[in-house]
Amino acid sequence: MELDASPLALPFPDMPPISGVTLRVALARYKNWDRADLTYAELAECTAVAGVFTQSACASSEVELGREQVKQGRARALIVNAGNSNAFTGYRGREAVDQIRAQVAEHLGCGTDQVFVSSTGVIGVSLPKDKARAGVAAALIAEPCNWEDAARAIGTTDTFAKGAHTSAMLGGTRVELVGFIKGSGMIAPDMATMLGYIFTDAAIEPGFLQELLTQANRQTFSCITVDGDTSTSDTVLAFATGAAGNAPLASFDDPGADAFAAALTDLCRQLAQLVVRDGEGASKFIAIRVSGAVSDDSAHRIALSVANSPLVKTAIAGEDANWGRVVMAVGKAGEPADRDKLSIAFGGIWTAKNGLPVEGYDEAPVAAHLKGKEIDISIELGLGEGHATVWTCDLTHGYISINADYRS
Amino acid sequence: MELDASPLALPFPDMPPISGVTLRVALARYKNWDRADLTYAELAECTAVAGVFTQSACASSEVELGREQVKQGRARALIVNAGNSNAFTGYRGREAVDQIRAQVAEHLGCGTDQVFVSSTGVIGVSLPKDKARAGVAAALIAEPCNWEDAARAIGTTDTFAKGAHTSAMLGGTRVELVGFIKGSGMIAPDMATMLGYIFTDAAIEPGFLQELLTQANRQTFSCITVDGDTSTSDTVLAFATGAAGNAPLASFDDPGADAFAAALTDLCRQLAQLVVRDGEGASKFIAIRVSGAVSDDSAHRIALSVANSPLVKTAIAGEDANWGRVVMAVGKAGEPADRDKLSIAFGGIWTAKNGLPVEGYDEAPVAAHLKGKEIDISIELGLGEGHATVWTCDLTHGYISINADYRS
Repeated sequence: MELDASPLALPFPDMPPISGVTLRVALARYKNWDRADLTYAELAECTAVAGVFTQSACASSEVELGREQVKQGRARALIVNAGNSNAFTGYRGREAVDQIRAQVAEHLGCGTDQVFVSSTGVIGVSLPKDKARAGVAAALIAEPCNWEDAARAIGTTDTFAKGAHTSAMLGGTRVELVGFIKGSGMIAPDMATMLGYIFTDAAIEPGFLQELLTQANRQTFSCITVDGDTSTSDTVLAFATGAAGNAPLASFDDPGADAFAAALTDLCRQLAQLVVRDGEGASKFIAIRVSGAVSDDSAHRIALSVANSPLVKTAIAGEDANWGRVVMAVGKAGEPADRDKLSIAFGGIWTAKNGLPVEGYDEAPVAAHLKGKEIDISIELGLGEGHATVWTCDLTHGYISINADYRS
Repeated sequence: MELDASPLALPFPDMPPISGVTLRVALARYKNWDRADLTYAELAECTAVAGVFTQSACASSEVELGREQVKQGRARALIVNAGNSNAFTGYRGREAVDQIRAQVAEHLGCGTDQVFVSSTGVIGVSLPKDKARAGVAAALIAEPCNWEDAARAIGTTDTFAKGAHTSAMLGGTRVELVGFIKGSGMIAPDMATMLGYIFTDAAIEPGFLQELLTQANRQTFSCITVDGDTSTSDTVLAFATGAAGNAPLASFDDPGADAFAAALTDLCRQLAQLVVRDGEGASKFIAIRVSGAVSDDSAHRIALSVANSPLVKTAIAGEDANWGRVVMAVGKAGEPADRDKLSIAFGGIWTAKNGLPVEGYDEAPVAAHLKGKEIDISIELGLGEGHATVWTCDLTHGYISINADYRS
């Protein structure tokens, strides 16, 4: 099945090269297709690495190994296989990953623990070792490619290539941060989402990079959902080559650390929102803002309850300002809420205030807002200072078609 | 929108009258339709009552009052309004309920706390007091009707009338238990689901009836889900008129108490499964059986994670034995699970065992099973003795059409 590009797609941005990062792609033919599906990023020596991974209890071997590998803090290579997630394949899957790590480590003359591997695609089919060996061999000697080529090669049901770029001034040194990501279904928060890769030329200690990535993840990847389904393979890795030559960052006391943290969070937010824009069947991008909750965590859980409600998502698909369904989703969240203090707005226009419909509110601007592609739902609980924002998409016939009408 | 009957519909069963219960329906015209939408059940004096209600923090006035009223244990009347849930309507909604309770109490010469009111339908529109007054007046003097008439009158988006019947021997006395229920969307567990009413001629103390209903609810209504969305109005009430003349039941020590408890649970399970069979857009009835979990509660949460997964539900709709999606849903449940001990079967045929696909399993019987309307998914965790079963339906274009294509 060839899918049209999402109506919410954005063009791939101009992204500068990152000194110390060389990208190559190859055709391993993990599925019966003629597109590059194996991506190889070669990284300068001493590149710092940090990662966040799925919380799934049924994670793939790639995720299990990745969780261990980030602890030593250094990376020389990344391999991404697309078309086969290698999850739930037991020892056979693990053997395929070990083979890839050994093959790349021998080529680079580094330890296998500095070779990171991710896989994405169908669950339950072992990654074929022969295809992996030939694909890696081809990738190791391929011509270098650009970010968009790599972003496209890691995709599966994605309908457009997703990348983002930002920069930060660390003292007097400008550093670049770029990233690319894939994902459009089996997307739910409380972990890093699907496969995302961030590269920077900043010099930063691995432990501090991990701290910043974890913090950014909580405000970005953990704030998106497409269908509430959490993948077995979700991974976000950040690589810092240090080639920019700034004084290495090791804590928030270092000059530029705040600027780098802000830039990293901004980059993660861009990447996370791109995944929502490629949500399976999505026709609307929805921001759900909750305020007045008893805590930020409570606001986050309420926002997710609304974002994951099929009735809210189908109402938005139908361009229906059905705030009753928002009330329902707030009520079921299991968090403190007081019906008679609850207010709800679409596109900034209050349709219900303090537990009552707003009498005679002007429906025309609300209807116009819902006809657009960027929908804003605000929920004020009137209980405290807690607030949170999550991003999701609507639930349409397209989601059913992608996931039911066609066999995987 | 007129909906065709669900392909999973069952015929309305023969249900005997319950001595002490008289049913009447009337047309209040809560929506622009020409069908009875107000149901009145008159109950013999001293009828015992018990109830379970939604856990929603945004519950309707009807639910708030009902929670209080069941504490005094006696009921003389039930009124059910269909087409308007009267939820999130503040003091105006409360006034409408109080009016109905006063009108019926005056007619029967009883206290207002013995008149139970439920409403179901759109959220956020106050129940119109004039229509309610005229409808109740008509119902109070209408000709008595049968169970099916009442079951039909409480429905909204339901596509068929749903009732169930069982009986029990209490010592030497046969008692009858009947019930009817409505619901097809905004269905999720951890509460009583939508509106369900149970009537028995057994003599039973209200406190013990409540204990039995709460226990039955945990094994039945709390084990179904259509879309994971919890209504603001969910209510199940049980009424026991005592007309059968058995020695009143007050505890499990009384002869026949176990038989009555088993019959009540059986009735609740029948009613709960009928709601799933009328799930919006449903084409398959799915039983999800989890065993080998660390506890029954853990098994229940894992079963619900699978039952609420849009990717599992769309796979079943597509008749695809996609056990990888089941693995995903087990993994995201947040409960103990060990990938390498996990086994999954469809229709009793193991497709994955101990964390590996079963080599060369015979796909033909699995495919045949998935073409049917009754789907069985078994999940063995291999960790302990905990087990649970939940019932759900698939997710189809029909659900999207009902909830997105048509405005509410």
